[in-house]
Amino acid sequence: MLQWLKHYRRDQLPGDISAGLVVAMMMIPQGMAYAIVAGLSPVVGIYASILPPIVYALFGSSMTQSVGPMAIISLMTAAAIGPLAPAGSALAGVLAAQLALVSGAVLLLCGLLRMGFLANFFSRPVMSGFTVGSALVIAYDQLPTLLGAAPPHPHAPSAVLGVGSLLLLVLARQYLAGWLKRCGLPPVVADIGAKLAPMAVVVGGIALMSLTSLAGMGVRTTGAVAAGLPHLNLATSSQHWGALLQPGLLIGFMVFLLSMSGAQALAQKRNEKLVSNHELMGLGAANVASALSGGFPVTGSLSRSAVNFAAGANTPLASLITAALLACALLLPTGWLSLLPMPVLAATIIVAVLGMLELDILRTAWDYDRGDALAWAATCLGVLVLGVEAGVVIGVALSMGTLIWRASRPHIAVLGRIAGTEHFRNIERYPAETRPEVLMLRIDANLFFGNVEAVNERIECELTTHRSAHDLVLVMSAVNSIDTTALLALSELNQSLKQRGIGLHLAEVKGPVMDRLRHSSLLRQLNGTLFLSTANASDQLHQTKDVALL
Amino acid sequence: MLQWLKHYRRDQLPGDISAGLVVAMMMIPQGMAYAIVAGLSPVVGIYASILPPIVYALFGSSMTQSVGPMAIISLMTAAAIGPLAPAGSALAGVLAAQLALVSGAVLLLCGLLRMGFLANFFSRPVMSGFTVGSALVIAYDQLPTLLGAAPPHPHAPSAVLGVGSLLLLVLARQYLAGWLKRCGLPPVVADIGAKLAPMAVVVGGIALMSLTSLAGMGVRTTGAVAAGLPHLNLATSSQHWGALLQPGLLIGFMVFLLSMSGAQALAQKRNEKLVSNHELMGLGAANVASALSGGFPVTGSLSRSAVNFAAGANTPLASLITAALLACALLLPTGWLSLLPMPVLAATIIVAVLGMLELDILRTAWDYDRGDALAWAATCLGVLVLGVEAGVVIGVALSMGTLIWRASRPHIAVLGRIAGTEHFRNIERYPAETRPEVLMLRIDANLFFGNVEAVNERIECELTTHRSAHDLVLVMSAVNSIDTTALLALSELNQSLKQRGIGLHLAEVKGPVMDRLRHSSLLRQLNGTLFLSTANASDQLHQTKDVALL
Repeated sequence: MLQWLKHYRRDQLPGDISAGLVVAMMMIPQGMAYAIVAGLSPVVGIYASILPPIVYALFGSSMTQSVGPMAIISLMTAAAIGPLAPAGSALAGVLAAQLALVSGAVLLLCGLLRMGFLANFFSRPVMSGFTVGSALVIAYDQLPTLLGAAPPHPHAPSAVLGVGSLLLLVLARQYLAGWLKRCGLPPVVADIGAKLAPMAVVVGGIALMSLTSLAGMGVRTTGAVAAGLPHLNLATSSQHWGALLQPGLLIGFMVFLLSMSGAQALAQKRNEKLVSNHELMGLGAANVASALSGGFPVTGSLSRSAVNFAAGANTPLASLITAALLACALLLPTGWLSLLPMPVLAATIIVAVLGMLELDILRTAWDYDRGDALAWAATCLGVLVLGVEAGVVIGVALSMGTLIWRASRPHIAVLGRIAGTEHFRNIERYPAETRPEVLMLRIDANLFFGNVEAVNERIECELTTHRSAHDLVLVMSAVNSIDTTALLALSELNQSLKQRGIGLHLAEVKGPVMDRLRHSSLLRQLNGTLFLSTANASDQLHQTKDVALL
Repeated sequence: MLQWLKHYRRDQLPGDISAGLVVAMMMIPQGMAYAIVAGLSPVVGIYASILPPIVYALFGSSMTQSVGPMAIISLMTAAAIGPLAPAGSALAGVLAAQLALVSGAVLLLCGLLRMGFLANFFSRPVMSGFTVGSALVIAYDQLPTLLGAAPPHPHAPSAVLGVGSLLLLVLARQYLAGWLKRCGLPPVVADIGAKLAPMAVVVGGIALMSLTSLAGMGVRTTGAVAAGLPHLNLATSSQHWGALLQPGLLIGFMVFLLSMSGAQALAQKRNEKLVSNHELMGLGAANVASALSGGFPVTGSLSRSAVNFAAGANTPLASLITAALLACALLLPTGWLSLLPMPVLAATIIVAVLGMLELDILRTAWDYDRGDALAWAATCLGVLVLGVEAGVVIGVALSMGTLIWRASRPHIAVLGRIAGTEHFRNIERYPAETRPEVLMLRIDANLFFGNVEAVNERIECELTTHRSAHDLVLVMSAVNSIDTTALLALSELNQSLKQRGIGLHLAEVKGPVMDRLRHSSLLRQLNGTLFLSTANASDQLHQTKDVALL
């Protein structure tokens, strides 16, 4: 905690200041936009960008993470509070803060229980499908705001303003960095400058509204933005705790997942170590802070953190500077912000989430593993059809489902000896010799509840094929663990083979597996021998038979 | 389908007839008892024992499975319909049948989609904890019926009758088989005879009620049992589909799990093959049949199937005979059944579920793997505190949780050469030699989304320890699969190492893994070499360096 402050070096300051400034300028339109996605008044997005990053700087473990509002979490917030309170109402604000409190408490609890392994419940393809689905939902939801009315009958002035801003932002996204570079700006500065396009378009929109008669033509604006810092208090609605529990759990889970995946990518670039349990604590504290300051659930945003990093952030001081600047913005007169036209804000939202429409992972999965590609598609479709909350559940179910499905078809090889050597290989891939009285199977999977039955079935199947086998050797060189379910199944197999007069032998059991098996009765009751190597097993079982024949 | 009928041999008939008779005599008290557990009138339990086993005989794959009411599924049925309709009401009957329809449809759908791998979602310790928790809930729920009133103030005549029956049944369970054997009965007959104790106690109870004045003293009986076969029709309550969907899904899942675990144990004894997708179809069709004949969710019962098997069942004809006998019982006058005293029925329920209080698995897990023992305890506690439906969800979550938790701490060994040999071993367990410029890591786990981050962290950690390493060799001899998430992570590691001037080499990649990697760009972009063996890698990386030094 605060290690970075103890070892702060003066040469880190310029980078932190520039990053703090840049991110603050990104944060104003983004915070307001994501508050609107969540169904809240725009100023809440700025509230959620002040205290949470300060608290995260105290407890989190990432140096460059930018904690604050984030599109997907805002969508989940909207899904949770939408059915309970009308968008923009005071109750919606109270419930959003309460939701942040629940998520924060969940995250803190998981952190205290050291449950950082929860970050491993989503596969990358599933996460990607979830992100793309959410992005499409967010963009689709903004269409009426972009056009000033529902699609078939747009409000012309709003539509022109919205679509115009959208085009400008798309062009800026595509060409601005290159153009700034050709103008002689250093590449890093040009890249960062291009990221400020949303702020420029927002300022342009405000100027247009104040200089022209667009407001009179019915273009909606954000309306009065309350000046002054958020009050520190915790208003909760006691009758809604029950309804917020499950969404709070899911949001807490996704806050952690989204933040970790972003922070990990950056930590790898900076060669830093991220401690998942610290992250849980940092994000939990940040969400509680958001609840206390009238905000809504927050997380680390990959896109914003990347800008923070690129703009030179060396330590969380950058985030503190961002927070201080946003606080200053709220202390200054905020009248100008009230003129921000909604269609322009909708355009910034759409462009931001279009950046999340990443299909590379789907393409890789399609080439490499169709199962993962299907999981991608099913998760994306789940979010589109059943909503973002169902999407999280579907995502976890599919990640686990593909895992168990794959486990249920383990690779098992019948081994034979490569003539004249000590080497034993899969007889399907090598010209290896087998003997009818000894069946040797190499199990190429860790044994656990998910594949126990499949392994059992395969063993029985091979025993049926090799009817003259009176010894079965399980070669365990690729088995790294055996869980209780598999231990019980092995014991039962041992009993069953004993009754049938077939010996069960184990070979090449690994050290850690052996250490564990010593705590069980399997080895004592084994109807056969424990061999160090497959060659040993083959030789000795051969000799025993020769002796028996004599 | 019906393969067994085509190849039916006359010598199989005596066994099937005796098993059919024995199971029918077990089924009458059991069916009525489990209907009461489900909150239904007793005759529903007999209805659910007629058509479902007939249909299962057509579609299922187990030869000796006895499909019908089962304690845990009845408890789940009660949990699902209890909040919607009063116990024993007509609506409760309709909802129970509707629930069987939903479960049956879910099972048929899973069967059509060939999702037999769903049976692998529960670890044995979790299943055992779930069973024990359910048994305790069922037994506890029967206490008021056993004593004729809530515990502090029992109804004396009922309590004497109930506790007396309970004692008789417990004694019979413990000593009857042995006593019958000493009386000269063959062991198999004695064991089966002991299983009919509940039927004998039920008949005794009825006799007592009709011969004494117990009924006048306020001992409750089952009341009129409608004679005649169930009508084939499907009454559903259209407003309750939504409320029954989730319980129906969970019940379908547990029907499959419970039936499979029982059937597998028997199939192993008979050396038969069970096809999980056929089982899904058979159980699905049986539940739809139960819905059509006014029953409730049914499954294969391990205890009853074991009796069926022990009594000589060779084919599903035994179940057909049981069903025919039960149908006959309903066609005869059923007045005598109406005298069955409820405390006696409660006693049979309690003794039946006491047989499910199996602590062996907990003991094995405690000695072998504390994590699995904790999962046992948490699932059992979950059922007791939060109920049986939550218990299923907790069970799946804990099975998956332990899996991901274990995956998040993969075993990775730093390898060194055993001096003067071609063998490379874990330097922590063997006196092996390493060279500072080549770091060799053997990854002892399949690479997938659950352990990708842990593997990455460990690699970075080892690279930090071995600062002078300019080549990293990943020895993949124990890696049996790499999923898309892990492929992406390996590609990123490759990029990152390239930038840092460290070569990434792979050695001993297995055939199936190699086949798959050829569909990706990793091998093409690899910042290093693919070696057949670890020794190759060590030798060649050594030579390269020597050449470079020259």
